[in-house]
Amino acid sequence: MSRSLNLAVIPGDGIGQEVVAQGLKVLSAVLPQDVKLETKEYDLGAKRWHRTGETLPDAELESLKQHDAILLGAIGDPSVPSGVLERGLLLKLRFAFDHYVNLRPSKLFPNTATPLAGRPDIDFVVVREGTEGPYTGNGGSLRTGTPAEVATEVSVNTAYGVERVVRDAFERAKARPRKKLTLVHKNNVLVYAGHMWKNIFDRVGQEYPEVTTDYLHVDAATIFFVTQPERFDVIVTDNLFGDILTDLAAAVTGGIGLAASGNVNPTGAFPSMFEPVHGSAPDIAGQGKADPTATILSVALLLRHLGHETEAVRIEDAVAADLAERDGGTARTTDEIGDALAVRVAG
Amino acid sequence: MSRSLNLAVIPGDGIGQEVVAQGLKVLSAVLPQDVKLETKEYDLGAKRWHRTGETLPDAELESLKQHDAILLGAIGDPSVPSGVLERGLLLKLRFAFDHYVNLRPSKLFPNTATPLAGRPDIDFVVVREGTEGPYTGNGGSLRTGTPAEVATEVSVNTAYGVERVVRDAFERAKARPRKKLTLVHKNNVLVYAGHMWKNIFDRVGQEYPEVTTDYLHVDAATIFFVTQPERFDVIVTDNLFGDILTDLAAAVTGGIGLAASGNVNPTGAFPSMFEPVHGSAPDIAGQGKADPTATILSVALLLRHLGHETEAVRIEDAVAADLAERDGGTARTTDEIGDALAVRVAG
Ligand SMILES: CC(C)[C@H](C(=O)O)[C@@H](O)C(=O)O
Ligand SMILES: CC(C)[C@H](C(=O)O)[C@@H](O)C(=O)O
Repeated sequence: MSRSLNLAVIPGDGIGQEVVAQGLKVLSAVLPQDVKLETKEYDLGAKRWHRTGETLPDAELESLKQHDAILLGAIGDPSVPSGVLERGLLLKLRFAFDHYVNLRPSKLFPNTATPLAGRPDIDFVVVREGTEGPYTGNGGSLRTGTPAEVATEVSVNTAYGVERVVRDAFERAKARPRKKLTLVHKNNVLVYAGHMWKNIFDRVGQEYPEVTTDYLHVDAATIFFVTQPERFDVIVTDNLFGDILTDLAAAVTGGIGLAASGNVNPTGAFPSMFEPVHGSAPDIAGQGKADPTATILSVALLLRHLGHETEAVRIEDAVAADLAERDGGTARTTDEIGDALAVRVAG
Repeated sequence: MSRSLNLAVIPGDGIGQEVVAQGLKVLSAVLPQDVKLETKEYDLGAKRWHRTGETLPDAELESLKQHDAILLGAIGDPSVPSGVLERGLLLKLRFAFDHYVNLRPSKLFPNTATPLAGRPDIDFVVVREGTEGPYTGNGGSLRTGTPAEVATEVSVNTAYGVERVVRDAFERAKARPRKKLTLVHKNNVLVYAGHMWKNIFDRVGQEYPEVTTDYLHVDAATIFFVTQPERFDVIVTDNLFGDILTDLAAAVTGGIGLAASGNVNPTGAFPSMFEPVHGSAPDIAGQGKADPTATILSVALLLRHLGHETEAVRIEDAVAADLAERDGGTARTTDEIGDALAVRVAG
């Protein structure tokens, strides 16, 4: 456990600024006195792009590499054409820093609103592959804009990439009480990638006899997310299916305002990046209405990744206690929620 | 409206046999006396494959073309490797008969179980593209089974294919009271296909000023399916996103036992095919436990497609009335539900 934490901060757009401020507040409050926190803010996102046309210059990419971890708020604004910041900044970071484990825990905390009747017991984590699949940017468009246009998207999957994320998921499943791992894919239609995923999953699984395994097609998985979410413990899946499933998971566990995520490079070769699953929500930006809890829970994932397990748990316990006391009365501001959590983790 | 109906029937595997029998029972009961119903059964599916190694021989494909429509039960069995029957039979039919409109209505009938608290008002239809996208079978595997394997899946999208399904969806939206059409894609990541879909959607939309339009990323759409499903009227989307969304839609509207679908060729160049969204459910096959309602609602879609609107409505009304009276008491058998609906539509 390092006694200094050299953090890159990318507040980004919209509510990104506000929620990151609360994340840092709670981080400062929870860190032991002797851990020196240094932060450097990076001005990246929609405003920067409008001003300079840049999404992520090489110099900044190099500089980001020097940090222990990255905390990101949210990226995106309707004024920027769809895809520019996603591909040029967010995904560029995930790919450049080889964030092959996109970690997304879903837990239904007591007293939080779920659209599901009967409040099932939900506590699972999705290990979403982060560097392959349909997210590679492979593909193209021929005769663009004409009636004869052909557009392709190529999902690229390698045994190297699949095995490392599957192995990571088995390790996580092994460390949890229920020790269950579900592979989600669509191997009855996407037979090339799907069979490779399934074969590797089965082979690696032989090294983990204590882990119970299951396979579901992605369409069936969405059904179980709403009818029987308690059946899941750890899920491993491809980049696009993971994107879809984790938004649905967030929706059934109290909403996107609580969903944390980590873009993790488990080898430590590059800094890992932690961000809420939600977007920049420009419609409520600057009004103190955003719930910073997802960012604060992302800070917990960040601390755990860097070996500060005690502090991670302290944040998660504080969030659980805070949510348990939310009475649905007057809504608190972004700042008030951050303050309340900072007090709890320090106390 | 033709005064004869020459129907191909593919009962298929597992519960397929049982539910199709009820579909035909209700069809016979609802058809006007002067419409002559002729059916021809095709022995296709897992048993046939085990016996002969065939999935869909050319001769049978040719023969199927001679019918006015196809009624299919369910295809698939765990004893057949994943993908063999899906690609070799189900998808082969959809592609060979150019079923570019995969029509999947979702309606929350009164008195049916939904996992959603608060029973939102759900009544939308998904127009899923059926002949392109990641379902084309393009792609491959290099160095299969080795640590150096690379597997690709290519999503192929053409302006031709996208425009015709988008146009069909606008027509359907225009004909409905709320006149709203939502495009679902992922154009911030899948920029080639996504931008083509969005551009065509916007261009065609100009011809339909009375239709309100909306765009959602697929991940966000899944959130709204559980938090705000009443916002949807007609949805148009690609083949894979449509697969995922319609299973989720079925789950929130009373389960996969009620979800009907049509694989439609609107030009009439080839017969359209109607089938429940559910699979062959081998675990409950042969026990009279399967709910045939999804198949019977698929028969309604079939009748509507062939111009028998009155009869289609009569089936849908019968199902609504039947569901309203289901009291959660003793479960009825497959046969009993079919009988009850046959009586209602005849009466
Ligand atoms: C913004 C977008 C590129 C991103 C993704 O698709 O991964 C987001 O939806 C997420 O889940 O982090
Ligand atoms: C069985 C499978 C090939 C099929 C699909 O993916 O289209 C099914 O899930 C469906 O939705 O009809």
